[in-house]
Amino acid sequence: MINENMQRLGSKRSVIRELFEYGNARAEAIGRENVFDFSLGNPSVPAPDLVREEIARLLEELPAQTLHGYTSAAGLPEVRAAVAEYINAAFGVPVSADTVYMTCGAAASLTILLHALCEAGDEFVAITPCFPEYKVFVEGAGGVLKEARADEAFHLDLAALEAAITSQTKAVIVNSPNNPTGVVYDEAELTALATLLQNKSAEYGRPIVLIADEPYRELTYGAQVPYPMAYYANTAVCYSFSKSLSLAGERIGYIAIHPDCAQAKELFAAVCGAGRSLGYVCAPALFQRVCAKCLGQSSDVGAYKENRDLLYRTLTEAGFECVLPEGAFYLFMKSPIPDAVKFCELAKKHELLLVPSDTFGIEGYVRISYCVEKDIIVRSLPAFRKLAGETILL
Amino acid sequence: MINENMQRLGSKRSVIRELFEYGNARAEAIGRENVFDFSLGNPSVPAPDLVREEIARLLEELPAQTLHGYTSAAGLPEVRAAVAEYINAAFGVPVSADTVYMTCGAAASLTILLHALCEAGDEFVAITPCFPEYKVFVEGAGGVLKEARADEAFHLDLAALEAAITSQTKAVIVNSPNNPTGVVYDEAELTALATLLQNKSAEYGRPIVLIADEPYRELTYGAQVPYPMAYYANTAVCYSFSKSLSLAGERIGYIAIHPDCAQAKELFAAVCGAGRSLGYVCAPALFQRVCAKCLGQSSDVGAYKENRDLLYRTLTEAGFECVLPEGAFYLFMKSPIPDAVKFCELAKKHELLLVPSDTFGIEGYVRISYCVEKDIIVRSLPAFRKLAGETILL
Repeated sequence: MINENMQRLGSKRSVIRELFEYGNARAEAIGRENVFDFSLGNPSVPAPDLVREEIARLLEELPAQTLHGYTSAAGLPEVRAAVAEYINAAFGVPVSADTVYMTCGAAASLTILLHALCEAGDEFVAITPCFPEYKVFVEGAGGVLKEARADEAFHLDLAALEAAITSQTKAVIVNSPNNPTGVVYDEAELTALATLLQNKSAEYGRPIVLIADEPYRELTYGAQVPYPMAYYANTAVCYSFSKSLSLAGERIGYIAIHPDCAQAKELFAAVCGAGRSLGYVCAPALFQRVCAKCLGQSSDVGAYKENRDLLYRTLTEAGFECVLPEGAFYLFMKSPIPDAVKFCELAKKHELLLVPSDTFGIEGYVRISYCVEKDIIVRSLPAFRKLAGETILL
Repeated sequence: MINENMQRLGSKRSVIRELFEYGNARAEAIGRENVFDFSLGNPSVPAPDLVREEIARLLEELPAQTLHGYTSAAGLPEVRAAVAEYINAAFGVPVSADTVYMTCGAAASLTILLHALCEAGDEFVAITPCFPEYKVFVEGAGGVLKEARADEAFHLDLAALEAAITSQTKAVIVNSPNNPTGVVYDEAELTALATLLQNKSAEYGRPIVLIADEPYRELTYGAQVPYPMAYYANTAVCYSFSKSLSLAGERIGYIAIHPDCAQAKELFAAVCGAGRSLGYVCAPALFQRVCAKCLGQSSDVGAYKENRDLLYRTLTEAGFECVLPEGAFYLFMKSPIPDAVKFCELAKKHELLLVPSDTFGIEGYVRISYCVEKDIIVRSLPAFRKLAGETILL
C-alpha cells in the first residue's frame, strides 16, 4: 500500500538524526547533563537580540492578518529586494530581486533547485566528505549523485572532480565553510574550479551549474569566504538563516541565481514550479520579514570559537589527529582505529555521541558538532581523554 | 538545462495565484481600495489574540536557542501529543501521538502523504469541483488524478465516485468544508462513502485510503462537520492551521493517521521518509508550539458569516444563482453565461476578481473568496449589480 522507498527513508533515519534521538533517550535515562551529544548541528548560541526585537516590533506594528498572511510564492517583494541588495553590497554580484526565491531553509533550497534542474539521467557531483542528505535530495529529484573525493586537507581535488564530471553532469555542489570538515575554500581554488567548469561545459556543450550550499557563510574564525558567484556565472546559491541566526527550527532561507546564469529566467520559473510541486506555497511569513532585517548578521561566533579552540587543543594534546576548522561548527577528527563506526560505538560507552564519517561518504573520521554549551565540552574532556587512552594504542 | 515540467508549472502559475498577482498590479495602478479582489483564500480576520500572547510568552520564557532550534522531524513530542489528545477529545478517535506528523501547512501535508502512498501507476480520486493543486501534487508524487463529479448540490455523488474507482485507486481525497463550494458533507454521506470504500477495497483486495483535506474544519456557520476518521479506519487527515487561525503565511499543519489504518506504522514511516526526501526537515518550531495551545480555536468566524450573508443576499437578489456556503469562506456562483472564463473577464472590467470554475475542474461557475474586509464587499456590490445587468440578460 505504501511507497517502499519512502518507507525505507523514514525507517532508516539519517545516522545523525538517529544519534540525536538516541541522545534524547539517553538524556531521559541518565540525565541530560551526563550525555555529551555532539551529533547535531543545532545552534547552541541564541539568535541575535535583533531577531526578538524584530518579532516584537512586527507583532506591534503590522495587523496580524497581514503579518501572518500568504506572501507571493517567491517571497515578499521587499524581502527579495533586501536579499538582492545585500548580495550586491556584500559580494559585488548584481543579483536582482527577480531571481531571489525565499525558501523554508537550506534543505528546501536544495530540493527545490534540484527538482528545477534535474532531467532524466542527470548526474550531480558532490565533494566527499559531504552532507549525507545530498544523496537523498538528488535521488528524490530523480538524479544520480556522483562523489568526488576532496584532497587530503579536505580542500578541492580538481583532478578527482574532473574525473567525476561526465556528459551527464548537470551540476556540482560545493559547501564552504564545509560540513563536516570546517574547511573554507579559498579564492585560488574557486578560480580553478570555475575554469574547470567552464572547460567542461564547453567540452560537453551544456552549462554545468555550480550549486553553492551556504548555510555556514557567516560562521568563520577569521577566514575570508569568497562568494562562488563572483567566480562563475552559472551559479545558484542555496542559503539558510538556520545556522547564522540560530533559527534552525524556523525553516527560512533563499535561493539566489546569478543574473548571467544560462537561462536564468527559465531556471527561476522552474524553481517556482518546483516549489509549487513540492507543496511549499511560500516561506514562513514572519521570519521572511525578520531575516530581511538581519542580513549579514550572525549570532555569537565567539562562543563557537572558544569551543573550537578548547576542543581542538585538548583532542590534539590527547593524541587525536584533527582538522582545524576555519568555519562552521564541526570538528573533523581522524579515528585512531580504521573503523570509525566502531570507534563511535566505543565513544558511546563514555556517553560521547560522535558521527562516523562513513555517513559523509568517506571512512576513518568522525564529526564532532561543537555547537553546544561550553560546559558540555569542558565536562566531556575527561571522557575524550579516556577514549584516547583506549583507542590510540589499539 | 532545466526540468521543463517544473518550468511549465512555474511559468503558468495557478489561475488563482495569477489573479492574485494581477490584483496586486491593479492595486498599484488604481489604488488598493478600487480593486475588489475575491481571488485568494487569504484569511482577512486576524489570528486569535492567543496567538500573539503565546508568541510573546514563548519569547519571554524559552531560551532562544531552544525556541528556534530544530525539532524532531515529526515535530515536538509535546505538540504531537497535544494534537493526538485534541483529536481524541473532540472527535472520539483514539489517534496516538505516534502517528501525528507536524508539517509546513496543508500543501506540505498533502505532498508528503501523497509521496508516502504513491507507487507506480497509482490513481487518486478527487471530487470536482476541487482545489486545483491536487493535480499538481498528485502528479508531482508520480500518480494520476482521476476526477469524480459532485452531485448537483455539490455533495458526494456515490455513483460517480464508484465509477472513478479502479483496481489502481490508491486513495480518495475529500475536502469538507469544501473549497470551492462551501459545502459540508453530512454524516449520512460519510457513512455511505465508508461503505463504498470498504466494498471497493474488498473487491480489489487492497485498502483504499481516504485522504481528508481539512483546512476549513473550524470555519462553519452552524453546520456540524463529521470527522471522516470516525467513519472509516483507512483515513489520514491533512490538517492546516492556515485558515482556522489565520496563519496562512506561517506554514503550519499536521498529518494524522487513524490508529487502525492498514499498515499505520509503515505508512507513518513513509510519511517521515517523504518529508525527508522533499526537504522539509521539521515544521516551523515557534508555530508548532503556538498552535499546540490553540487547538480547536478559530479566528472570528462571525466576520466571515456577515460577509457570506451580505454577499449571498445581494447576489441572489441581483439574479445570480448561488450555493449557500455552510463552511469555508468561498461562495460558488453560477455564471449567467456558459463560459465562466469569459464571465470573469467581464467582471474584471468592474475590477471584480473572481476565479472561473474551470480551474476547479468543472465549467460554468465562479468562486468568490469572501475572506476580505466587509467594506470591500459593501463597495463591490454596485459592481456586482452592474455585472448582473450586463450578463444575466445575455
